[in-house]
Amino acid sequence: MFKTNEYFDGNVKSIAFETAEGPATLGVMAAGEYVFGTSTIEHMTVVSGSMQVQQPGETEWKTYQPFDTFIVAKDVKFKVKMSGDTAYRCLYK
Amino acid sequence: MFKTNEYFDGNVKSIAFETAEGPATLGVMAAGEYVFGTSTIEHMTVVSGSMQVQQPGETEWKTYQPFDTFIVAKDVKFKVKMSGDTAYRCLYK
Repeated sequence: MFKTNEYFDGNVKSIAFETAEGPATLGVMAAGEYVFGTSTIEHMTVVSGSMQVQQPGETEWKTYQPFDTFIVAKDVKFKVKMSGDTAYRCLYK
Repeated sequence: MFKTNEYFDGNVKSIAFETAEGPATLGVMAAGEYVFGTSTIEHMTVVSGSMQVQQPGETEWKTYQPFDTFIVAKDVKFKVKMSGDTAYRCLYK
């Protein structure tokens, strides 16, 4: 019914679902640093833990806490890192 | 790495992870009505969609929206219902 996906040898795992605003995933990342590519605009909301984010073309890392949202452009790569399990919700626009 | 669980024929699916405050799950429920039993105190936070909740011994249903939290006692049953996919974070205390 709900499809799960694993990335980075299982260090990132997500469940796909639908929202009133379109498709979304709910996921968890283990401690580490990851690069993701986007194919839509993504609205990422931290749900647990703390996530550092480096937007494309930037050198600065910004830190997001539970229920903070950041937006990533379409067709770019962005970096995230965390020091412990971190949960997120991602809306695809 | 992250363990997933399915309940109610796959209509509820969750991923287990750790938080600074203890064990947690992140999950999604499809439209329907479900009864859950608790074995710890649970702090449930809605992450997407809308969840109606009937606490044990109550007849009233209360509605929770994204980032609202409700607390359920240990060793009880509680009911939830929703009209579309609804995502949650659950902390076990």
